[in-house]
Order: sequence, then C-alpha cells, then structure tokens
Amino acid sequence: MNNIEARLAELGVVLPVASAPAANYVSYVVSGNMVFIAGQTSVRPDGTMLTGRLGEDLDVPTGQEAARYCAIRLLSQMKAACDGDLSRIKRVVKLGGFVCSRPQNSGADIPKIINGCSDLLVDVLGEVGKHARFAVSVPALPRDAAVEIDAIVEIDG
Amino acid sequence: MNNIEARLAELGVVLPVASAPAANYVSYVVSGNMVFIAGQTSVRPDGTMLTGRLGEDLDVPTGQEAARYCAIRLLSQMKAACDGDLSRIKRVVKLGGFVCSRPQNSGADIPKIINGCSDLLVDVLGEVGKHARFAVSVPALPRDAAVEIDAIVEIDG
Amino acid sequence: MNNIEARLAELGVVLPVASAPAANYVSYVVSGNMVFIAGQTSVRPDGTMLTGRLGEDLDVPTGQEAARYCAIRLLSQMKAACDGDLSRIKRVVKLGGFVCSRPQNSGADIPKIINGCSDLLVDVLGEVGKHARFAVSVPALPRDAAVEIDAIVEIDG
Repeated sequence: MNNIEARLAELGVVLPVASAPAANYVSYVVSGNMVFIAGQTSVRPDGTMLTGRLGEDLDVPTGQEAARYCAIRLLSQMKAACDGDLSRIKRVVKLGGFVCSRPQNSGADIPKIINGCSDLLVDVLGEVGKHARFAVSVPALPRDAAVEIDAIVEIDG
Repeated sequence: MNNIEARLAELGVVLPVASAPAANYVSYVVSGNMVFIAGQTSVRPDGTMLTGRLGEDLDVPTGQEAARYCAIRLLSQMKAACDGDLSRIKRVVKLGGFVCSRPQNSGADIPKIINGCSDLLVDVLGEVGKHARFAVSVPALPRDAAVEIDAIVEIDG
Repeated sequence: MNNIEARLAELGVVLPVASAPAANYVSYVVSGNMVFIAGQTSVRPDGTMLTGRLGEDLDVPTGQEAARYCAIRLLSQMKAACDGDLSRIKRVVKLGGFVCSRPQNSGADIPKIINGCSDLLVDVLGEVGKHARFAVSVPALPRDAAVEIDAIVEIDG
C-alpha cells in the first residue's frame, strides 16, 4: 500500500470501482501523458444521487459533501487510468466544476462548494493534487445531480 | 474516398464547409497533435439555427437532432484541421456539451440529448470516436441555440 | 520593454499582480508547454467585482467591459506563468467563456460579451492571441461576477 492508498484509508475513503458509462462515451481518455476524465456527478457511496439546487434545497455543507463525492469518483477514474497505481499521478491539472443553482445571487457559495472536491484531492494527493479550475453554476445536471466535476490529470507515461 | 467518408455518405451526412467566425477567435487551434475546436452550435444543414429550451419548447428527440447537428459541424472542423483527411484523427478526446434548459428537474434528458452527438461521432469514426465528456445545461446559448458542443481531438501530427 | 508590454502601455492596460487563490487550487498549472489558467472573474482594476446578469441588470457594453477585465486578469496569469515575459506566449489556444444570464432569449449577446475578452487578447498579442472558445451563459457566478473566463495557453518551454 503506497502513501496515497494509506491516506485514503486514513480518511475512510473507499474508492468505488470506476464506473463505465453505458453509451458511446467513456469515463476517461488517455492522450500522451494527459488523462481527460468525463464529468463525474455527486453519487453517494451507496450508489444513490445527491440531488439539490442552490437557492432551493441545497445548502453549502451539503453541496460540499456532493463535491467530495465527485472527488471520490474522479479518484476512482484516475486510479483506473493509472492501472491501479495512484502514485503515477504527476499533477491534477484542471477541474471544471458545475453546481446546480437558481439564478440567485449566490455570492461565495459556488467556490465554497467546489472546495469540497479541491480539498479532498489535495488531502489525498498532497501538492500534486493542486489544480487550476473553474467553478460555475448551471440550471440542471444529469440525473438532477447537485454537482458535476470533470478533470484533466497529468500522469507518468 | 476513405472508410470514414464512405460511412458519412452511407449515413447521408454532408459536411458543410467549415465555418470561419467573423471575430477575434477562430474555429480551431492546433497545438502539437491536439486540436481544440470552438463550441459548435446546433445549426441545421440549411444554415438556420435549431433553437429551444428544455422545460419550455425542446423535447428529447429534437434535442438529440440538435446535438447531431453539432456533431456534423465538429466533424467539419476536424476535417479542416486534418487538411481534408478525416483518417488522420487518432482520437476524439473530450466533448463539452451544453443544453439550453430551464432550472427544472430534467433527469436523464441532458445526457440523452448529448448522446445525439456522441452517437454520430462513433457511428462515423468507430472506436477512435469514443470520448470523455461533460454534459450540463445552461440558461441561454448564442443565437438561442438548443445545444452547443466543443471538442478536443488528437490527430496524427 | 518588449512589443507586447509596449502595446499594453499604449492601451493603458495595467496588469495587476497575478492573484493567488486562498484555497486548495491554484491560478494556473503548467503541464509541458501548456498553461491551464483557472477561471478569472470580472474584477475591476480597483479590486471590486463587476456584477450583473443579462436579462436583469447587465447590458452588452457593460458585459463587454466585464469580459475585458477577465482578459486583463488572464494576461496577468499568463505573465506569471512565463516568468514575466509575455513574448514567450506561442498561442492562446482556448477560452471558456461564462456570462451570467437569465434563461431569456439573449440572441447574439453572449458571444458579443465574450468578444470583450477575445478582442483585448488579440489587440495585445496579435495573431498568437487568436483562440478557439466556447461562449455560454450560467445562472450565477462566484461573487456574483458578470463574467468568468478560463484559458489554455501554449508557451515556449
């Protein structure tokens, strides 16, 4: 067990088997040493979707929990792309964060929510987990997810 | 005529001349062996825009048709980036899919609509057409398009 | 002072010190010769946020001004990524443009607004400033920004 797996265990995070979408798209594509990971939605460890919308029925702590579920699913895909060895991750390069929201003035809520993903990635991966990102809102997400986040990751080739 | 052009003919898909935006941006940029294609909106073969919004006046089949038009325009740009030879495409790496929508619970509609693009790309290009993607909604799109999709594509250098 | 700095001076554009987010994400990540810049919001030179939403309290000229502020902040990050030498920019590859909007029919307004960013980049950088982009709307942005724009930039290694 390497340091990253030890840290996951310490945090009590169990990575699910990386999901394979039942469609003409795939969960990630490796091009050179870059991995492009499909948008991961806020699915709980039990397989149910954490749904909700800012300005309606989603508060910041629940949104952060949702973003943390996205991070766990992103880590699962990274692990699959690295043939099971998360220490091959050289850098999480970029996240694209989407939070379901009403067109309200949501002030600092959107970035606070996406921090739920950013924080777990850095907690697990350390400095290589630090990434550029955008954080925006959208009126609706697939399966009414509260949060969806995609990623670009650099790995050892 | 290579296999890809034959498949396009078989499907009755005529690629329009790749459009050139009249502004300080361009339809694609080639960087190394990666092509970054600008967001393509749901323009019909006759040049009119397929407009609409989920929860108002857009249903799933029409949304899928819109996404298919985006795919055709993406293929046009890929062809231009490959100097006319679509067999130079090594992999469609990533799509970013935006569907115009009310803030309603749209359940499975968003990914179903973007499948209209994913399916045509794989139908035309086969395995190399399989891509990572995100699928989200937005309140409004340029020229009131129903769908806008951008892409990252790896080509033979 | 190189040509690009001269052009900035001529335009009266003063690049602020590149901001460093106080979180587990960073303003840019360099991977190979590609720089991935985090979404930059429409912060005025005096540090206040230009807020607003299309269909409510944002018109096109003000939106363009907002997008221009995003461009200035993107240029600051590019300069930081190039150790202060903007002539190391080989190409602005891709912009992702988000405009805060009601779910109204905003016709040509979204791309017109993002042109405020595209135009300044090309005005300052010339041909290497020409980029692919998407331009979409969203219901809300961090700190109620009117516009947020991220970028991928190729630099001399």
